[in-house]
Amino acid sequence: MGYFLTLHRFALLFTAIVLLPAYSLPEPPASPSLYQSPIVSHQPRRESLTMAAEKVYRASTTAPVNIAVVKYWGKRDAKLNLPTNSSLSVTLSQSDLRTLTTASCSASYPASEGDSLILNGEAADVAGARTQACFRELRAHRAALEAADPSLPKLSAMPVRLVSENNFPTAAGLASSAAGFAALVRAIADLYELPASPSELSLIARQGSGSACRSLFGGYVAWRMGDAADGSDSLADQVAEASHWPEMRAVVLVVSAAKKGVSSTSGMQQTVATSGLFQERITNVVPRNMEAMEKSIKERDFSAFAQVTMRDSNSFHATCADTYPPIFYMNDVSRAAIRAVEAINTAAGRTVAAYTFDAGPNAVIYYLEKETEAVVGTLYRTLGEIDGWKAATTQSLNSSVSLDEGTAGILKAGVSRVIMTGVGEGPIKTDEYLVAEDGSPVKR
Amino acid sequence: MGYFLTLHRFALLFTAIVLLPAYSLPEPPASPSLYQSPIVSHQPRRESLTMAAEKVYRASTTAPVNIAVVKYWGKRDAKLNLPTNSSLSVTLSQSDLRTLTTASCSASYPASEGDSLILNGEAADVAGARTQACFRELRAHRAALEAADPSLPKLSAMPVRLVSENNFPTAAGLASSAAGFAALVRAIADLYELPASPSELSLIARQGSGSACRSLFGGYVAWRMGDAADGSDSLADQVAEASHWPEMRAVVLVVSAAKKGVSSTSGMQQTVATSGLFQERITNVVPRNMEAMEKSIKERDFSAFAQVTMRDSNSFHATCADTYPPIFYMNDVSRAAIRAVEAINTAAGRTVAAYTFDAGPNAVIYYLEKETEAVVGTLYRTLGEIDGWKAATTQSLNSSVSLDEGTAGILKAGVSRVIMTGVGEGPIKTDEYLVAEDGSPVKR
Repeated sequence: MGYFLTLHRFALLFTAIVLLPAYSLPEPPASPSLYQSPIVSHQPRRESLTMAAEKVYRASTTAPVNIAVVKYWGKRDAKLNLPTNSSLSVTLSQSDLRTLTTASCSASYPASEGDSLILNGEAADVAGARTQACFRELRAHRAALEAADPSLPKLSAMPVRLVSENNFPTAAGLASSAAGFAALVRAIADLYELPASPSELSLIARQGSGSACRSLFGGYVAWRMGDAADGSDSLADQVAEASHWPEMRAVVLVVSAAKKGVSSTSGMQQTVATSGLFQERITNVVPRNMEAMEKSIKERDFSAFAQVTMRDSNSFHATCADTYPPIFYMNDVSRAAIRAVEAINTAAGRTVAAYTFDAGPNAVIYYLEKETEAVVGTLYRTLGEIDGWKAATTQSLNSSVSLDEGTAGILKAGVSRVIMTGVGEGPIKTDEYLVAEDGSPVKR
Repeated sequence: MGYFLTLHRFALLFTAIVLLPAYSLPEPPASPSLYQSPIVSHQPRRESLTMAAEKVYRASTTAPVNIAVVKYWGKRDAKLNLPTNSSLSVTLSQSDLRTLTTASCSASYPASEGDSLILNGEAADVAGARTQACFRELRAHRAALEAADPSLPKLSAMPVRLVSENNFPTAAGLASSAAGFAALVRAIADLYELPASPSELSLIARQGSGSACRSLFGGYVAWRMGDAADGSDSLADQVAEASHWPEMRAVVLVVSAAKKGVSSTSGMQQTVATSGLFQERITNVVPRNMEAMEKSIKERDFSAFAQVTMRDSNSFHATCADTYPPIFYMNDVSRAAIRAVEAINTAAGRTVAAYTFDAGPNAVIYYLEKETEAVVGTLYRTLGEIDGWKAATTQSLNSSVSLDEGTAGILKAGVSRVIMTGVGEGPIKTDEYLVAEDGSPVKR
């Protein structure tokens, strides 16, 4: 890590001195077909006379969604995205939820174009400070490699075209920025062939979107808050692999017609600034929860895992409610989901299901595969009509647990679909490209 | 106070020794018409041969509802009803909300009958520990007076018949136990002609229902938490009279179809036991809020009053949400009311309305009379069709503030009635009796 950081600082300095002039050039070089790298200007490229002949470098990756069981909420430094507390998440299976991102660069891309992103078929903004921080950091790392080894292609000087797609609807309100930034960082890191570890890349992903740092790993992932002012120790590491606890499952109740709430970035800072109860959460509640959570995962103790999960979710939402003006991410449908989980646990006589809610009304319910009848079966009795159930699982279920009318009615009216999933891997390199060999977006 | 407490302790001892045998007598004396007081058994009553001739002593009082602006939530001693923190309330006007209670006792009431209560036309249970605590304490005080002055009628030995009525529906979910216990205590105290001050009586009302102690006063009332183990300093005192701030008003949005939630007594102890954030509330948040609230009332600073009110309500509900299992008293209609208040304040460019919620979904919105158009007018635009508006006020209103469709829709669908009211007096002696001179309930 030490070597990498030294390289990193050198790279940043290098970038500032060398590349900045390149990006402030108002016009491309006279000949549109020849992109002359200002770094090795004594070696004009003459091999190719058409833009299409310039190699298009590409790297493609899928990245997962993660759902925190000990929540991130609050920054101690907004610029570097440093949190007020540690957090811990479960990486969901990419078979069900994933972002596919291809990063590409080429000397044939006009410098004037700058970097670009097409997300789910539409041009997305990359000018924001957060995305720029990711680009800048990744480029700096690449530039440092290029400076150390002049034979490497000067990828750092080329515009980057990113094309990204989610296999789940944005309207599902499911942590898409975490998967998105993790995919962006991983894809560019692969494009640049950076030797960085996932933890080292998580430092960069963190600057794009805090929770994205946890999507650099599969299984059970902690984001250590760190204490360095420069954020160099605020990164993700893996608590356990997905295969450590193979029975873990999750079912997501997607709540329909959910009005977009307060943005997380804005909301959490309002909480930091105005909640009288917040300090207690970050000083005492979360550290205890982190310790208990790691232990429960290592020991595969579902009851403990579940209780910490539910209580941390409640604690997080309580600090939102204690914000001024108060922030309410959960609604009556969310609360009905809580009542359903409580009914399931009461009927089972022990904790077999755990709810958790992010900054939105969707319920994520964790359970172990052996309790599928109790958990999924009970929910299926009420919500069997909606989309998302995996018939292979539900067709054999026959739960005897019924929810009270009020709870069932609210769920029926308010849940638009379910997503059944499990725990999965971190980013996976793929040969499925969203950018063609000629640099154009693939028509899909 | 000191004399009264000494008398109090003597009275309790006296009661234990003297009266207990009376109440353990399995049968009434042989002659049904003659109730012989065991205390002065050497003076048999012979004046009257019919039960009807025995004097029926009566006292009737009305008592108000109070709505806390710094909330009571949590007991440090469940038996004595001692709170974890101080609280402060606004006494609402009895013209709109009040309990009328008549306390009566008579030697003609059969001893076997014991004490009784008819509440809103139905027999109510008085055997519970809390109600018994009130009867016992009040009787003890009366017994002490009688012991010191043998010429006084031995009211302490007679069964008590209470008849009580609210002028507001119980379904409104409006703090009726506070008004009820305050009325009970005040009526019996008047019946017994106790010299106790309202603060001294609040010590007794507190044992019936914590928040009832604040209904012994009008205007703005604090319940000082106290620190004595015996609760002798946990009582109410008046911060300011109603007339101190004559412009203060309140409008209550009664939320329909509200399922009965977790009882306050049970809920608050779950919060004490399980909420990680609760300690911070009682140690730091509430003491600060009490100080700021008293100051804002004394200075008639509505903006400060409003902000503390809203923030304390949010803090209280946050600790409920942080309880395990979580307690949710507010629902989506409650939150729509919050959004409405926020919209009203935003449109006004300053804080002109304050919401607060008790252990239920009803919204109580405080405002000053001069802002009636902004506050009531805006709510009336959306809720004009429902019952409870005072035409004299609403007919001239013409607010230009409109609520967003979502908020308005939820309010329209969820609010069943409104109650417009103001700040009023503490218990008021009345000649309106619910018990007739012959001891029977008055037919109404």
